[in-house]
Amino acid sequence: MSMEESVKYVSVIGATGYVGAELVRGFASHPVFRFRHLTSQTFAGKPYSEIYPEFRGIVDNVCEDLPYEDVAKDSDLVITALPHGVSAKIVPELLKAGTKVIDHSGDFRYKDVATYESSYKLTHPNPELLKDVVYGIPEFYREKLKSAKLVANPGCYPTCSLIALAPFLKGHLIEEDPIIIDATSGVSGAGRKTDLAYSFCEADESFKPYGAVGHRHTTEIAEQCSFLAGKNSGDIKVTFTPHLAPFKRGMLASVYVKPSGSFADVSSEKINEIYKEFYKDEAFVRVLPGKTLPDVKAVAGSNYIDVNGVFDPETGIIKLFSAQDNLGKGAALQAIQAANVMFGLPETSGLKNIVRGI
Amino acid sequence: MSMEESVKYVSVIGATGYVGAELVRGFASHPVFRFRHLTSQTFAGKPYSEIYPEFRGIVDNVCEDLPYEDVAKDSDLVITALPHGVSAKIVPELLKAGTKVIDHSGDFRYKDVATYESSYKLTHPNPELLKDVVYGIPEFYREKLKSAKLVANPGCYPTCSLIALAPFLKGHLIEEDPIIIDATSGVSGAGRKTDLAYSFCEADESFKPYGAVGHRHTTEIAEQCSFLAGKNSGDIKVTFTPHLAPFKRGMLASVYVKPSGSFADVSSEKINEIYKEFYKDEAFVRVLPGKTLPDVKAVAGSNYIDVNGVFDPETGIIKLFSAQDNLGKGAALQAIQAANVMFGLPETSGLKNIVRGI
Amino acid sequence: MSMEESVKYVSVIGATGYVGAELVRGFASHPVFRFRHLTSQTFAGKPYSEIYPEFRGIVDNVCEDLPYEDVAKDSDLVITALPHGVSAKIVPELLKAGTKVIDHSGDFRYKDVATYESSYKLTHPNPELLKDVVYGIPEFYREKLKSAKLVANPGCYPTCSLIALAPFLKGHLIEEDPIIIDATSGVSGAGRKTDLAYSFCEADESFKPYGAVGHRHTTEIAEQCSFLAGKNSGDIKVTFTPHLAPFKRGMLASVYVKPSGSFADVSSEKINEIYKEFYKDEAFVRVLPGKTLPDVKAVAGSNYIDVNGVFDPETGIIKLFSAQDNLGKGAALQAIQAANVMFGLPETSGLKNIVRGI
Amino acid sequence: MSMEESVKYVSVIGATGYVGAELVRGFASHPVFRFRHLTSQTFAGKPYSEIYPEFRGIVDNVCEDLPYEDVAKDSDLVITALPHGVSAKIVPELLKAGTKVIDHSGDFRYKDVATYESSYKLTHPNPELLKDVVYGIPEFYREKLKSAKLVANPGCYPTCSLIALAPFLKGHLIEEDPIIIDATSGVSGAGRKTDLAYSFCEADESFKPYGAVGHRHTTEIAEQCSFLAGKNSGDIKVTFTPHLAPFKRGMLASVYVKPSGSFADVSSEKINEIYKEFYKDEAFVRVLPGKTLPDVKAVAGSNYIDVNGVFDPETGIIKLFSAQDNLGKGAALQAIQAANVMFGLPETSGLKNIVRGI
Repeated sequence: MSMEESVKYVSVIGATGYVGAELVRGFASHPVFRFRHLTSQTFAGKPYSEIYPEFRGIVDNVCEDLPYEDVAKDSDLVITALPHGVSAKIVPELLKAGTKVIDHSGDFRYKDVATYESSYKLTHPNPELLKDVVYGIPEFYREKLKSAKLVANPGCYPTCSLIALAPFLKGHLIEEDPIIIDATSGVSGAGRKTDLAYSFCEADESFKPYGAVGHRHTTEIAEQCSFLAGKNSGDIKVTFTPHLAPFKRGMLASVYVKPSGSFADVSSEKINEIYKEFYKDEAFVRVLPGKTLPDVKAVAGSNYIDVNGVFDPETGIIKLFSAQDNLGKGAALQAIQAANVMFGLPETSGLKNIVRGI
Repeated sequence: MSMEESVKYVSVIGATGYVGAELVRGFASHPVFRFRHLTSQTFAGKPYSEIYPEFRGIVDNVCEDLPYEDVAKDSDLVITALPHGVSAKIVPELLKAGTKVIDHSGDFRYKDVATYESSYKLTHPNPELLKDVVYGIPEFYREKLKSAKLVANPGCYPTCSLIALAPFLKGHLIEEDPIIIDATSGVSGAGRKTDLAYSFCEADESFKPYGAVGHRHTTEIAEQCSFLAGKNSGDIKVTFTPHLAPFKRGMLASVYVKPSGSFADVSSEKINEIYKEFYKDEAFVRVLPGKTLPDVKAVAGSNYIDVNGVFDPETGIIKLFSAQDNLGKGAALQAIQAANVMFGLPETSGLKNIVRGI
Repeated sequence: MSMEESVKYVSVIGATGYVGAELVRGFASHPVFRFRHLTSQTFAGKPYSEIYPEFRGIVDNVCEDLPYEDVAKDSDLVITALPHGVSAKIVPELLKAGTKVIDHSGDFRYKDVATYESSYKLTHPNPELLKDVVYGIPEFYREKLKSAKLVANPGCYPTCSLIALAPFLKGHLIEEDPIIIDATSGVSGAGRKTDLAYSFCEADESFKPYGAVGHRHTTEIAEQCSFLAGKNSGDIKVTFTPHLAPFKRGMLASVYVKPSGSFADVSSEKINEIYKEFYKDEAFVRVLPGKTLPDVKAVAGSNYIDVNGVFDPETGIIKLFSAQDNLGKGAALQAIQAANVMFGLPETSGLKNIVRGI
Repeated sequence: MSMEESVKYVSVIGATGYVGAELVRGFASHPVFRFRHLTSQTFAGKPYSEIYPEFRGIVDNVCEDLPYEDVAKDSDLVITALPHGVSAKIVPELLKAGTKVIDHSGDFRYKDVATYESSYKLTHPNPELLKDVVYGIPEFYREKLKSAKLVANPGCYPTCSLIALAPFLKGHLIEEDPIIIDATSGVSGAGRKTDLAYSFCEADESFKPYGAVGHRHTTEIAEQCSFLAGKNSGDIKVTFTPHLAPFKRGMLASVYVKPSGSFADVSSEKINEIYKEFYKDEAFVRVLPGKTLPDVKAVAGSNYIDVNGVFDPETGIIKLFSAQDNLGKGAALQAIQAANVMFGLPETSGLKNIVRGI
C-alpha cells in the first residue's frame, strides 16, 4: 500500500501482451499511479523496454515472475491481462490479499454464469463472485465502480457496440429484435501472437469476417443489452459479426436496428440529438456533429469513442456507428478510466490528452 | 474492324484511371483482343507505360485524344471508363459508328429511368436506349450478353452484393425486407484521385463508413434484387452501407437477411449447398467449402468472387458473405468476362490464371 | 505576454499542416505552454478539431487568419510552419514585435547565405539575420539556445544524419570523404499534400529513392558536418540519398564512413562506447545496447532518436544508424525541446512520456 | 519425362513456402510447363488451394510427400525451395535420377567452397558439384544455362545488386573499393514464417536495418562481382546492409561506387547510356529513361528489374539503383526465366505479361 496519500501503486499481471503494453503506456504518464510490479513469465528478469523498445528510458522496470500474493500485497490496484480460465482462478487470490482488481478476461463479465459457461466452454470455479463484480464501463456503472473491489473490464467489441446502442435501448426507442452488429477490428485485437494468420504477409491487404457464428462477445453484448433495456440476462439476443482489417489499432461497430413505436419522430437529426443528450456529461464519448461518421483513425491511441447515427427513411432502418481504439477505450485505457473512478480521482486523469496524431 | 478472324480490336476511352489500368492489365495478356486506341485527354501523346511504369515493355502504346467516332470506327469493342453524365452523351455516338460498347458508368445500369435520375440527380439524355442495354453480370444475363450491342458494366458494390443474394432471391428463400448490406471497399474504389481523404497519411489506419444514406449503388442493387426475385423495379429496397478500408484492392459484402417461410430447413450447411448448386457451372464464382468465409486477399487481382454464408440459429438471421476485387470482378475484369461472351469466346479467355499471389 | 509567471503562450503559424498538427499534439499536453493563436489561411474560422478530428474535445481552438504582428504581440513564442521563401519575409516582422521565434523552413538554417541561395534557388531577403540564428539541435547548441531570439528548426534528414555523425566528426574519428548517407522517410515527410504520388494507392507498397542529386538537405547536412568537425561551411561535402517508404511516420539514416587514422582501435564495441559517452547526458538520444540496431517503429510519435553503429572489418567501413520520427525529433517535438531550453524549462517538459505504443 | 514434345513437367519440392507459391503462380499460366508434383511435408494430402486460397479453381493439385527419387523420375525439371544445408544433400539424389534441377538455397551458389562454408557455417557435403553448377542469372550466364543440369538460383539481394553493378564492373568503369550496397526488402523475403518480428503489428510501420555485419548474401554478391570484373573469388569485397520495410513484395538496391580512371567522362547521362547499351537485348531488365529512378511498386509481381543511376558531381560518387520483386526476379520468376533457357523455350515464355497492376 502506498505511503504517500497522493501516489497509488498499480501492478500489471501479464504486462507484456498488447493490452499490457497499452496499460503501461497509459499509466506511464499518469499523475497518480506508479508501477509496482510488471509481471511476465516469459520475460521475467528483462527490462520492460527490451521487450518494447519504444519504452527505453521511459519504462525500464524489470519484469518479474512472483507469486500472485506478493504482487497483491504492496499494490493498491492489480490489473490482470490474462487468458480466460486463468483469471477465474487467480483473481480470488488477489482479492483475498486485499488489493482491488481490474480483470481483462471474460471470466467475470457475466452475471448469468450459465451464459458464461456455454460461451466459454468452461465451468466457472468462483461463480459466487459474479454478483458483486462491476462491469467496467464507467458511462453505465459509474456509481458502482466507486466502491468496486473487482471490475471486469469489458470486451472490446462489447464496449464499442454498447456505447452505440445504450441511449436507444435505455430509452426503448428501438425494437429489440433484430439487433445486427457488423464490427471490424484492427490486428492488435488478436494479441501479441505469432499465428501465421496475423503475419504481415497474410494480414496486410486482407479483410474478412471471422467467428460468424458463436463469437464469445455475442453473449456478452446481449446480456448487457438486456440490462440496458431493463430486462434480464438472455431476454435480448444480438446478431454479431466481427471482421479483421489491415490496421493495427482501432475498431468500428456498424449497428442496424429498427425504431420502436415510441420513436415515431425518428430521423438522423433526432438520433444525433439523443446521443448528445445521453452522453452530454461524458468526457470520452464524442458525439460527432451532423452526419459526420466515426473513423477509427480519429480515436487510435486514445480513450475516446466517437459515435453517430443516421436513419434510412427508404427502409426504416436506423444505422448506428461507433469507433474506438480496441486497446484504448476497448481495453487498457478504459481500465485506467475505471481505475480513476475506483480511486476517487478525476475520471480523465492521465487520459485526456493522449492522442496518436497523424 | 479486324481483318483476321481470330483477332478483335478493343479501345478504352479513359484508359488512365484505375479501371482503365485494370482493363489494360487484363487485355494485355488476352489471347484474342488487341488494343486499338487507349484514349486520355490528360495524357494524350504519352506512352501508357509512362503513366503506369509497371507496363514498361508490355503496353507502350501511346495515349490518344481523338474524336469518339474515330475511336469507334476501327474497333470491334469500345470500353468507356468515364464519369456518369459523360457516358450518357457519348455512348450513343459510339453505337452509331457500329461498334459494341461496354460502359463503366452508372448511366446505363437502370431499367427504370426515374430511379436513375433521382439517384444521380441528372436527366438522362437517351432513356430510349435503356431497354436494350444488358446489365453485365454474365452469371445472370449470359444469354442476353451474346447479342448485346451495349453492356452496362455493373457497379462494384452491386456485383458483390447481388452474387451473394441471387440464389436466395431467385429461390424466394429469404424475406425481401430487411435486406441489410454492410460492405467495405479498398481505396482504389475511389479512383485515381488526389483528394486529401485518399492520401496515404489520411487513408492508412483509417476505417470508416461513408455515404450511409443515399449512396447511389443502393438503388442499383435494389433494382436488380427486384428483377432477381421476379418483381418490378422498386419493389424491393435494400439497406446499404459502404465502408472504406486501408487496402488498395478488394471488396467484401456482409449481408444480413431472414429466411422466408419456404426455407424451413435453413442451416449453414443448406446455405452452402444452395450456393454450390446455383453456381455449379460458373467459372468465377467460388463457393467456399464448409464454413470457410471469404477474404478479399484471396480474390485480389483476379476475376474471382468467393461466397459463403451461415445461419445464426440464436437470432434467425442468415449471414451471406462475398469477396471480390473491386477493380476485377467488380469492374474491369468482369467487363472482359462480358466481352468474351459478347464475342463468342470461351468465357474464361485471358482471365482464368490471373492471380496476385502473396 | 503571459501574466502568470508559470504559463507561456505559444502561437503556431501554419498550424494545419502535419508539422503544425504535431506541434499542437505536443503542446496540448505541455505543463507550461498554452496556445494563443493557431493560424491557418485555408481553415480560418474553423475549430482545429474539425480539421483534425482526433483533437475533438482536446484542442477545439478556432483557427485564425490575422496579421503576423497581432500573432506576435501576445505570444511568448511563435512557431512558423511555413514554406521556405515565405518564412524569410515573415520572421523579421515577428521578431520586431518582440516575440521569440522558431522557424521550420530552410530559410534560416544556413550560416553561409550563398549555400542557401544555390540550394533553394532564392535570394535571401534578410541575410543579416543568419549570423545570430541558432540551429535548433539542443544536443549541439544548447548554450546558444538559452538566449536565442530566433531558432531555425533543422530539417528532418539533417537532424537524423547529424546525431548519427556528430561524435565521430567532433572526435575526428572518421575520414571526411566519403560520407554517404542513405536515408528513408515515411510519407508524412511530404506534408499534408494531395499530390497523386502520396495517395494511398500510389504510396502503399512503393519504395523508391528520390532527389538523388541535389536534394536541399544535402547542403544543410554538409554545413553542419563542417561545423561539427571544427571547419568552415563548405569544407565537408556529403553524399545524400533520400528514399520514400510506405509508413506514415519515421525516418532512418544509414551512414557509411571510414575510420580515420586516429581511430585505430575501431570496432563495433568501440563505436557503441563512443556513442554512449558522447550522448551520456542526453535525454532524447538513446544509444542502443550491443549490436541492437534502430527501428523507426520504436521512436514513432516521440522525441527520441535511437542510434547505434557497427564496423565491417572485411571492408573497413563504419556503418552508423539513427532512427527518429520525422515529425517528432525531426520537426515539431524537437522544436518543443528547443522551446523548453529557450524558456529555461526542464528540457524534457511535456516530451518525456509521449510514445505511440503498438 | 513428358510424352508430348510440347509439354514439360515440373515439380516443386517445398511448394508451400512463399517462393514455392510464386513458382506455382508463375508456372500455372506457363504455355509449356505442367505441374507433376507439388511436395510439402506439412501439408501432404491437402489441395494446394486450401493452403493458398487464391489458387482455388486454378491449382487444386494435392500436395504430396514422396521420396525425392520418385519426384525426379517423371519430372523434366525439379525446383527445390528448401533451406540451405538440406538442398546440399538432396540435390545430388535428384540429379542422379536424371532430372534437371534449379535449387533455391545458398548451397550451390558459390564457386569457392571455403567462402560458402564460412558464410553458412556448414561443411559442404558435395563440393565436387559446384564446378558445373550454373549461377542462374540468364543476363550473365545464358550460354551456360542452355546445357545446365543444375542451376543455383541466385539470392534476391545478389540478383538486385549484381544487375545494377554488372555493366560497370565488366567495363572496369568503377573502383572496386568501396562498393557500398544499401538494400531494402519487403517482408515476404523472410518467408512464410510465424516469427513475432514478421507479425503485422510488429512489421507494419517498422523500418530497420538487420544483419548489418556478415549477412550471407554479402559474400555471394562479392564473389559474383569478382567474376564480373574478370577476377577470382575473394578479390572484390562489398559492404552490404539489408533493411526490412513494411510492404509485402519488392526489393531496392541503392549502390554507391566511385568512377575509375577509365570513366573520365562520367555523368548521369553516360551512366544511363551504359545501362541501355549493356542491357539492350534483355527482355526483363528495364533501363529507366533520363533520371527516372526505380520504384519497387513498378516491378511487384513481375520478373522485371528496373535500373538507373546518377552521378553526384559534388562528391564524385556514382549512385546506382535497381528494383525488383524479391519473389519475382529475385527468386521464383527468375527461376522460370532460367528454366525457359534450359529447355530451349523463348526466354519470356509465361513471364512477359505478368504484372500486378495498381
